[in-house]
Amino acid sequence: VAPAKLPDEFTLIARYFRPLTAGAEAALDLADDAALLDIPSGHRLVVTADALVAGVHFFAEDAPDLIARKMLRVNLSDLAAMAAVPLGYVMICAFPKTIDQTWLAGFVAGLARDQAEFGIRLLGGDTTATPGPLSLSVTAFGSVETGRELRRSGARAGDLVAVSGTIGDSALGLARLQGKIAEFIGDEELIERYLLPQPRLALARRLIGLATAAMDVSDGLAGDLGHICNASHLSASIEAAKIPLSKPARHLLAERPDLLATILTGGEDYELLFTVPPERQSELAGLPVTVIGRMEAGQGANVLDLEGRRIDTGEGGYRHF
Amino acid sequence: VAPAKLPDEFTLIARYFRPLTAGAEAALDLADDAALLDIPSGHRLVVTADALVAGVHFFAEDAPDLIARKMLRVNLSDLAAMAAVPLGYVMICAFPKTIDQTWLAGFVAGLARDQAEFGIRLLGGDTTATPGPLSLSVTAFGSVETGRELRRSGARAGDLVAVSGTIGDSALGLARLQGKIAEFIGDEELIERYLLPQPRLALARRLIGLATAAMDVSDGLAGDLGHICNASHLSASIEAAKIPLSKPARHLLAERPDLLATILTGGEDYELLFTVPPERQSELAGLPVTVIGRMEAGQGANVLDLEGRRIDTGEGGYRHF
Repeated sequence: VAPAKLPDEFTLIARYFRPLTAGAEAALDLADDAALLDIPSGHRLVVTADALVAGVHFFAEDAPDLIARKMLRVNLSDLAAMAAVPLGYVMICAFPKTIDQTWLAGFVAGLARDQAEFGIRLLGGDTTATPGPLSLSVTAFGSVETGRELRRSGARAGDLVAVSGTIGDSALGLARLQGKIAEFIGDEELIERYLLPQPRLALARRLIGLATAAMDVSDGLAGDLGHICNASHLSASIEAAKIPLSKPARHLLAERPDLLATILTGGEDYELLFTVPPERQSELAGLPVTVIGRMEAGQGANVLDLEGRRIDTGEGGYRHF
Repeated sequence: VAPAKLPDEFTLIARYFRPLTAGAEAALDLADDAALLDIPSGHRLVVTADALVAGVHFFAEDAPDLIARKMLRVNLSDLAAMAAVPLGYVMICAFPKTIDQTWLAGFVAGLARDQAEFGIRLLGGDTTATPGPLSLSVTAFGSVETGRELRRSGARAGDLVAVSGTIGDSALGLARLQGKIAEFIGDEELIERYLLPQPRLALARRLIGLATAAMDVSDGLAGDLGHICNASHLSASIEAAKIPLSKPARHLLAERPDLLATILTGGEDYELLFTVPPERQSELAGLPVTVIGRMEAGQGANVLDLEGRRIDTGEGGYRHF
């Protein structure tokens, strides 16, 4: 059976995209010129945008449902970084001729699954053909109580630097998929972290009024800590030995100490990096977070090795250009 | 002098995109994870999204400032369709290697010019490299008084059908650029309409409380009238002889009556198509609008020729697939 080519745009919307708007009055059944969204009184709109291009951000042969779910989660992580409650998203799809209805059905199933998991709905978008690779753009919306949002600025000298979950798993998982790391027992956990990040939405809400600065770790811990330093006009020192690692990451690092650079700068962790006043450290008890360092006067982020020597993390972050 | 390659992403943002956020506190200097937008109390957020791909929606060799300005205006036209007041936009750019700093400077100059003209600011976005063609996505935001927005539904049988400005100029301008129409005196006006549409933002605000249904004409008058019919569960008849035409379009149509199909279905007019109760027709006086027909019971849009015979407009609209 030949794969079914994509139908015309109106059929495409009716068959695949309109069902994703079910329950979202704001989407107006994708039948009007725009979406109409109510923002709760006393709240601000939080807006984030991300592009995903096949061959740049994911492999064209990746499972379509996982592409969809990772796309949503990356955006949800940006909303979490500001402690927003997700509202919905608009999506722009540029489909090459190679995309057929089987692929699209898998992609939409992935969207539907994570919509249900995170309580969001498709609100609008646009679809076009492209002679280039599959390209996806999402603009995601959330709301946050006015003035209560978490920002990258606001850290104070002496504040503790903390991070959620474990760091480096996603970058190691990608290295594993690329064959830069040999197969080993437990590698699925790392690959899973690369393919399906977990946005820290609930944790972020717990940090409102507690964290003085926050962001999500997408470009690599070292580089992203630099962003908090810049935004807060401070320096920071974190200790490599305190960075929380998963069991497979610890195993790998013991065998290959050179992988510390991958862990520090690989990115796509989608964990929260944040600062808290030292006198409030006890309020972190019970949360899946680890204190890894401290904010200081000065500028730039320092990562210290076991002997307290500064590690050069170079540009410290993944850059597209 | 060799064209200057694009710098790294952080320099790109600092040099080209951050200046476009000047005055927009919501953008947080493009230095945080998301934008933070206040929606005026008693208003709803209006959100529209559009994709533009080189070779599909514009010619790669088009002037970059005109690509930028048309991109914004197409989105502003969608906001106008709902009578929204524009607030700002986020933009996702996928740049192929052929894009250099000269191109980008021209593109950003076009954005800056229309930002000033329409009172909007860049609020956020994402930039990536792509092995494919230049691809641009915009999500534009506006606000409208809750419950006062114009929608495609809401027309009643007997309502007059009206359209702003003149129809068909853009499609004829494109045909002229494609060499399907020979050069003639006055053709610049048509080409200008194709390259630089005028979103009907001010007119749309005048139609609040007066129009029973509205949309912008982007896919072609015949097809878009069908959308109002569908959304309002009605039929409509419009008369080809009443459709407002520019002087060069009238000139062309007199020589080549076959161009009526282009005028009716070519699209990209970015005029407002709307309905008004017949007893309120006098309130249209002084507005740049023309009554072209009437809503009726039934379904589907009819276009009648000079003898009152129905014209077959086929699928009646530009479709991507």
